[in-house]
Amino acid sequence: MAKEKIRPLILITNDDDITAPGIKNLVEAVKDLGRVVVVAPDKPQSGMGHAITIGSPLRLNKMNLFGDIESYQTSGTPVDCVKLAVDKILERKPDICLSGINHGANHSINVIYSGTMSAAMEASIEGIPSIGFSLLDYRYEADFTGARSVVHKMVSALLKTKMEKHMLLNVNIPSVPADEIKGIKICKQAYAKYEEDFDERLDPHGKKYYWLTGEFVSFDKGKDSDVYALSHNYVSVVPVQFDLTNYKLKEKLENKNLFK
Amino acid sequence: MAKEKIRPLILITNDDDITAPGIKNLVEAVKDLGRVVVVAPDKPQSGMGHAITIGSPLRLNKMNLFGDIESYQTSGTPVDCVKLAVDKILERKPDICLSGINHGANHSINVIYSGTMSAAMEASIEGIPSIGFSLLDYRYEADFTGARSVVHKMVSALLKTKMEKHMLLNVNIPSVPADEIKGIKICKQAYAKYEEDFDERLDPHGKKYYWLTGEFVSFDKGKDSDVYALSHNYVSVVPVQFDLTNYKLKEKLENKNLFK
Repeated sequence: MAKEKIRPLILITNDDDITAPGIKNLVEAVKDLGRVVVVAPDKPQSGMGHAITIGSPLRLNKMNLFGDIESYQTSGTPVDCVKLAVDKILERKPDICLSGINHGANHSINVIYSGTMSAAMEASIEGIPSIGFSLLDYRYEADFTGARSVVHKMVSALLKTKMEKHMLLNVNIPSVPADEIKGIKICKQAYAKYEEDFDERLDPHGKKYYWLTGEFVSFDKGKDSDVYALSHNYVSVVPVQFDLTNYKLKEKLENKNLFK
Repeated sequence: MAKEKIRPLILITNDDDITAPGIKNLVEAVKDLGRVVVVAPDKPQSGMGHAITIGSPLRLNKMNLFGDIESYQTSGTPVDCVKLAVDKILERKPDICLSGINHGANHSINVIYSGTMSAAMEASIEGIPSIGFSLLDYRYEADFTGARSVVHKMVSALLKTKMEKHMLLNVNIPSVPADEIKGIKICKQAYAKYEEDFDERLDPHGKKYYWLTGEFVSFDKGKDSDVYALSHNYVSVVPVQFDLTNYKLKEKLENKNLFK
């Protein structure tokens, strides 16, 4: 019991839901590094951004999906999962929170829409160093072999250092065989967006409805962006912050004195 | 018709839903400044963060809630509303997007959870200068008199200048009579968070469920924060950015060379 207490406490969540192969691979990758507790949504929550559940109550159920690893599913969003873990499940603050491994990219502007990254950001706001992991392969049957070894390498390195209290990393892993991953690069968030399009259809009653579709476009020509690193088979690591203040524009607006 | 074309095109949305008094007051405040088009959710979407609708299709219906102002309601999130407006409704890019007026504060860390601010951020990503307005009064019957005059003053001043393409402002308005508002201050996002608590209850079948509750705590002692300005009856204006890269931590991690 005494030894148990000093092992790192690792909180794991995701946005694809507790049954996704990605979270199973994340658990497998780090379970030798500490005591792992999983708290994850009971249904897919992709694209939920930083949504929280205000207007309805939440359910929380103990599960048994990961062998001897303690696990819970909730009816909430990824952010709700972190809040429930911290306030209702864990007896102390985790040493690190890991979110993912997401099925699909969360590089560049995706950080804003991503439930995976929002869960990690929520932990970071709580003062828990945190990492979101994503593999650039949307498929259920994606191969996580390379991703697993990246996760293990990064988390074991970080657990040996003193991490910043609000450390938040957005890690994306190229979808190539493990031996083709060239390395791990610290990057900035690429300037990119989606050129949306809506697929307009008619329902059986003749009324219109719309499916969101869109094409990803990167405007970033720099070699220090996550999109650039990934396109060259590097793992991209973007340090992320939750102070969204645009200090440059703040200074400009102060000087302009527009609203007096 | 020729004159119509050069009037500023103002897109208005919110997260409280299209019937909320806040959005009606926003329309009233700016309708003399250009051609206003409203695209807003058909149900409350508070706390939706930057959620988008991927797994289900969207509905879009023309409404008639604001006299001669063109208006539409959608079944989507605030971010979906902006995407639909830009791609399906408006024939050209709006000159400005206004979101709100939110019933309740969106200062400090709330910017992350807020549907109001996420709608504005989505417009900013699209290259549309954008402002989210929030009044520090949650009530349906809140008095928007002071807020309306702040909105008019700010929007008319900004429409006369060349705004940055990705300009994004988080504006919070104290809940005091109009003549007690002391002025408009450009601020930084206060460092604050919610100390969550979950209200645990039993349903009629004896199963547990949880309501998210929590207390707002500001750790920011600075006089340049939005929380400070609001507590002194100033309107707070925080310029916001969607590049979330933490450049300081990026440099530190590059120097540490942890993941080689």
